[in-house]
Amino acid sequence: MRIALLQTAGDPANEPAANLDRLAAAAARARAGGADLLVAPEMFLTGYAIGREAAEAKAEPADGVCAHRAAEIARANGIALVYGYPERGEDGRLYNAAILIDAEGRRLLNYRKTHLFAALDRSMFSAGTGTCETARLGPFTVGLLICYDVEFPEAARALALAGADLIIVPTANMKPYEPVSHLLVPARAYENGIYVAYANRCGREADLAYYGLSSVAGPAGGNLVMARIGEELVFAEIDITEIGAARSVNTHLRDRRPETYGALAGKAE
Amino acid sequence: MRIALLQTAGDPANEPAANLDRLAAAAARARAGGADLLVAPEMFLTGYAIGREAAEAKAEPADGVCAHRAAEIARANGIALVYGYPERGEDGRLYNAAILIDAEGRRLLNYRKTHLFAALDRSMFSAGTGTCETARLGPFTVGLLICYDVEFPEAARALALAGADLIIVPTANMKPYEPVSHLLVPARAYENGIYVAYANRCGREADLAYYGLSSVAGPAGGNLVMARIGEELVFAEIDITEIGAARSVNTHLRDRRPETYGALAGKAE
Repeated sequence: MRIALLQTAGDPANEPAANLDRLAAAAARARAGGADLLVAPEMFLTGYAIGREAAEAKAEPADGVCAHRAAEIARANGIALVYGYPERGEDGRLYNAAILIDAEGRRLLNYRKTHLFAALDRSMFSAGTGTCETARLGPFTVGLLICYDVEFPEAARALALAGADLIIVPTANMKPYEPVSHLLVPARAYENGIYVAYANRCGREADLAYYGLSSVAGPAGGNLVMARIGEELVFAEIDITEIGAARSVNTHLRDRRPETYGALAGKAE
Repeated sequence: MRIALLQTAGDPANEPAANLDRLAAAAARARAGGADLLVAPEMFLTGYAIGREAAEAKAEPADGVCAHRAAEIARANGIALVYGYPERGEDGRLYNAAILIDAEGRRLLNYRKTHLFAALDRSMFSAGTGTCETARLGPFTVGLLICYDVEFPEAARALALAGADLIIVPTANMKPYEPVSHLLVPARAYENGIYVAYANRCGREADLAYYGLSSVAGPAGGNLVMARIGEELVFAEIDITEIGAARSVNTHLRDRRPETYGALAGKAE
């Protein structure tokens, strides 16, 4: 399976319609480059550091107007899509969400960020409940996390234990957190024997300087590809047979000692 | 605090007395280099891939003859010591253990490897129960893990939640597991806001090729120092004020969502 990561600053005015146009253009380029899946960043549809009022105004349900347009883009280009957006939940709350749509335009997953990052997230969003839903995409069992979530080994592990062998992570990560791309993303892939696809924003937004460095990390240890700091569409080929090969060498998942991990599921520090 | 890592193949005949002589020589060199703590590899005292019979013959309790000799070395040189050895438990079982002795010769910690690695460990040892004991060493709260343990984010996290800001890891890691030094050790340090000191064997033993690359990783992201592949005494300076500085930027420990981590403490895959 071939993945394309859309590293972008998005529309400067943060208009969903303009960002959907960008998504359509990227989907066409990604498909032309042989990709089966295009991953756009966290809050791709609307911009991220937009404040509560704009997030409220631009939020939509998982089956909203933009999701329908994105499904058309997926179907028209024959490519699966993941992107982040502000979700209006059926409970009326706002969530920092990401959606997976397959190449036929069907919504396979809708995930809500579980680990909220600082005031930036907390001023806008309610936290998700950490569902470990997975879906089948080609030969892969896929799960979603968003940005800060993947920095927590617990979140990636829970998805791997639920069967995910590819975790897709729309993100909007900024300086000085570059070690997340250099260390944590490939560590998650190696320690779980999975692939992790990490699609970041770039450019500036409010007082944030997104660092780019979107990457795909594999189960054998290390990043297969890493973008630079600017706008870029990067491709990586991932191979389901590498999962089994890596897990025959790295037997972490079956050598866990869960009976000794009680403190992890207890109260936070 | 200044740490020295003793990367060594140990005595070729795997005699504890000869390895204690090596420890004494290294302690003197480490102290001369300003170190407050010297860390030797996993099963330093006896060799690692020695088989059940030799492990049985050379095992000793945590307060055994070799431990007393090591305590003398610590006291004589005014340096704290960590090293690995085969422990004869009070229950009669063999454990792959590590001991921390302070510069006054007092035993502060004795830890038993919780995650046994392959037939190599399983043919010799019973597994520890994953205690999260810590001890004070200078300004640091210290915990021990052994080799494969640190590859499990759960084990390092549990120690960090128990207050450890320095995890000391005697190891005997071999090709092709180099990503442990390059990725997992610095990931553990970064994701927990702690230091991790990882002292590996080098050279060959039985059919194993130890890869060296002993390292100390810090909370700001990345290895502070990394040995090459051969015999080496490497030094790193660690600073307790860096823990607080890193945790003001990386707030992982307090942003955990333990109520969503129930699956981690459940049954293994």
